Amino acid sequence: MALVVQKFGGTSVANIEKIKNVAKKVIREREKGNDVVVVLSAMAGETDRLINLANAAADSPDGREYDSLISTGEQVTVTLLAIVLISMGFKAKSFLGFQVKINTDQAYKKARIKGIDPQAIQEELKKGTIVVVAGFQGVDEENNITTLGRGGSDTSAVALAAALKADQCDIYTDVDGVYTTDPNVCDRARRLEKISYDEMLEMAMTGAKVLQPRSVEMAKKYDVPVYVKSTFTDEGGTLVTKEDKDMEKEIVSGITYDRDQAKITVVHVPDKPGIAAALFSPLSDKNINVDMIIQNASLEGFTDLTFTVSKKDLKEAQKIVENTARQIGAKKVEVDDEVAKVSIIGVGMASHSGVAAKMFSTLANEGVNIMMISTSEIKISCVIQRKYTELAVSVLHDAFGLEKKK
Amino acid sequence: MALVVQKFGGTSVANIEKIKNVAKKVIREREKGNDVVVVLSAMAGETDRLINLANAAADSPDGREYDSLISTGEQVTVTLLAIVLISMGFKAKSFLGFQVKINTDQAYKKARIKGIDPQAIQEELKKGTIVVVAGFQGVDEENNITTLGRGGSDTSAVALAAALKADQCDIYTDVDGVYTTDPNVCDRARRLEKISYDEMLEMAMTGAKVLQPRSVEMAKKYDVPVYVKSTFTDEGGTLVTKEDKDMEKEIVSGITYDRDQAKITVVHVPDKPGIAAALFSPLSDKNINVDMIIQNASLEGFTDLTFTVSKKDLKEAQKIVENTARQIGAKKVEVDDEVAKVSIIGVGMASHSGVAAKMFSTLANEGVNIMMISTSEIKISCVIQRKYTELAVSVLHDAFGLEKKK
Repeated sequence: MALVVQKFGGTSVANIEKIKNVAKKVIREREKGNDVVVVLSAMAGETDRLINLANAAADSPDGREYDSLISTGEQVTVTLLAIVLISMGFKAKSFLGFQVKINTDQAYKKARIKGIDPQAIQEELKKGTIVVVAGFQGVDEENNITTLGRGGSDTSAVALAAALKADQCDIYTDVDGVYTTDPNVCDRARRLEKISYDEMLEMAMTGAKVLQPRSVEMAKKYDVPVYVKSTFTDEGGTLVTKEDKDMEKEIVSGITYDRDQAKITVVHVPDKPGIAAALFSPLSDKNINVDMIIQNASLEGFTDLTFTVSKKDLKEAQKIVENTARQIGAKKVEVDDEVAKVSIIGVGMASHSGVAAKMFSTLANEGVNIMMISTSEIKISCVIQRKYTELAVSVLHDAFGLEKKK
Repeated sequence: MALVVQKFGGTSVANIEKIKNVAKKVIREREKGNDVVVVLSAMAGETDRLINLANAAADSPDGREYDSLISTGEQVTVTLLAIVLISMGFKAKSFLGFQVKINTDQAYKKARIKGIDPQAIQEELKKGTIVVVAGFQGVDEENNITTLGRGGSDTSAVALAAALKADQCDIYTDVDGVYTTDPNVCDRARRLEKISYDEMLEMAMTGAKVLQPRSVEMAKKYDVPVYVKSTFTDEGGTLVTKEDKDMEKEIVSGITYDRDQAKITVVHVPDKPGIAAALFSPLSDKNINVDMIIQNASLEGFTDLTFTVSKKDLKEAQKIVENTARQIGAKKVEVDDEVAKVSIIGVGMASHSGVAAKMFSTLANEGVNIMMISTSEIKISCVIQRKYTELAVSVLHDAFGLEKKK
């Protein structure tokens, strides 16, 4: 007998009919003789509805109250699923964050899980109960309700799997697994049978939306095998797991893209200590995330500094940077909001040379100019003009032979 | 400086605009220098929406899950009001049942408050915080969420006022007080300045919908002065309080009616011990409430037994009673679902003779037949044909001179 954690996202529980469908999947797992813990998101659209209410109530709603408000979405789905399961003759019980307890820090809207008390759930599992836990929510030390940020239910599921020492964590979603790239952009995209935690993490951080990056970090840390599966079909699935020998044979496992990028260049900056801090601290103070940062080699005591931000932050970032640029004696600030980032990811990259060169020449052959480059051991990202995004993904997919398993 | 508990019902918090209006009322009280604890219901219609979801999920939804589901309605309104108050520059904090804690028994859907821990709220009040508490909900010993039944937010408010030793409990609603009778039925209905707990309780139990009976019992028990006020105007209001000399001068304070009545008569029952128990235990087992019960004088060892139930319970009650009637050897069972109950209430009744006679003759003069009578020290109820309800209320209102204060 195994212990399985199953997580279902918002589109899987969007209405009563779909919740009944989820109940069937849960029961099928239970009837294999497994203990089952289910983690749910809110009904698709419900969290947005609640956020709209909060924003109608105030321009910048208080964090504590905001979290307590939007956590109701998951409270609705878990109780409804428990009602359905009980009416079908099964023992079932919903748990909210405070009932488990799922302890978090007090960073409202993006709290981090500090620990989960497994005892209450374990006792119910011993009685044969199907346990249904509200994703996305926890409580801080003072019993204030907190939420984990967008996609936080993935993290709830993996954290519960870790705390309960589950044998497996199944993430049910509206796609049937992790693909070599977005099938909507490249019709040769192929579902991966397996992917390593590190690759999945890079993919999630560079644009793949299938899993929240933090949930992957946590899965890696606690060595939780995660299956990404479809709620709507029984086929397919991708196992996110530890790196193994097979994986290293693949040079590139996946290609991601992120269209939500804008580029800011500070031109002719005096190259001296403290300049980077002077530029980036005011952005960080305003919660503006800077993604890639490139500093050119210094020429006669001056350099150019280029970085990317999220498109939605561009206007505010530009104002802040122009202000700083004057103070530090830079020549001017240039912005470009027509860019995108394309990345190739693969654990095999570290042991194969020529991967970067192949990426660059493939793009060059299509006339795609590379504006910025950043690399990690298992990833290369290029910033290009946004209009070339689909083309770049498509030609890279072919160049690295992702269509067919070699 | 006083401590005031303010309770606002569902129509008062039906949308963001109305919640902002409630915020103004709260702030006005706060700016008098008073400590304020606000208790809210769910947005009008929201509890019904959640109940419909539960009923779509299963024919008879599990009680624990049902309560946890429908308690989300109040969680939404209290957090939204706190967001509004904070955005207006006030300290405010929402509390859910488990955060207060409001301890109840485990009778889901109709839990009773066992005790309220005042400490957390008192600490916030000391800091100058406006405390906003979710009505209608509590938690049992095992931290399961419970709800108090329809209108339970009134009880939450009075119980909090008692636990916090508040100086006053204001129940804001869509009418501006307690009337001598329903103004929709009798246009001479007059708002009462004051009414005693006992009278209010009888009125609530015989058909007046302005307060939940249990909240009145609790107000009486803990001697909490309750003001019934309108959310939408500043005028009027009725104080529900201890009986005083003035009140006894009024023979009748109010007239109520209840159209949701059906009458069942068991004809020619052998008059021997155990018959009543045999008839009523099976009804109670099915949670069918029996209201008035009349047993005629025994004639030659046989009697007739008549009682009333809620109209919605009539079909089920009839089946059960017909079954019992056969077993105990009664002749037959007759039902009448075209009846109503009209009641007159007043603490002065006990010290004035002739009140009942006046009621009966007033109805007789209009040709209204009285089918059943039941009395308490401060109340007389008559069951009549439903079609005469408005007429009966109207003529009794005139007969007892309720239009003008004497």
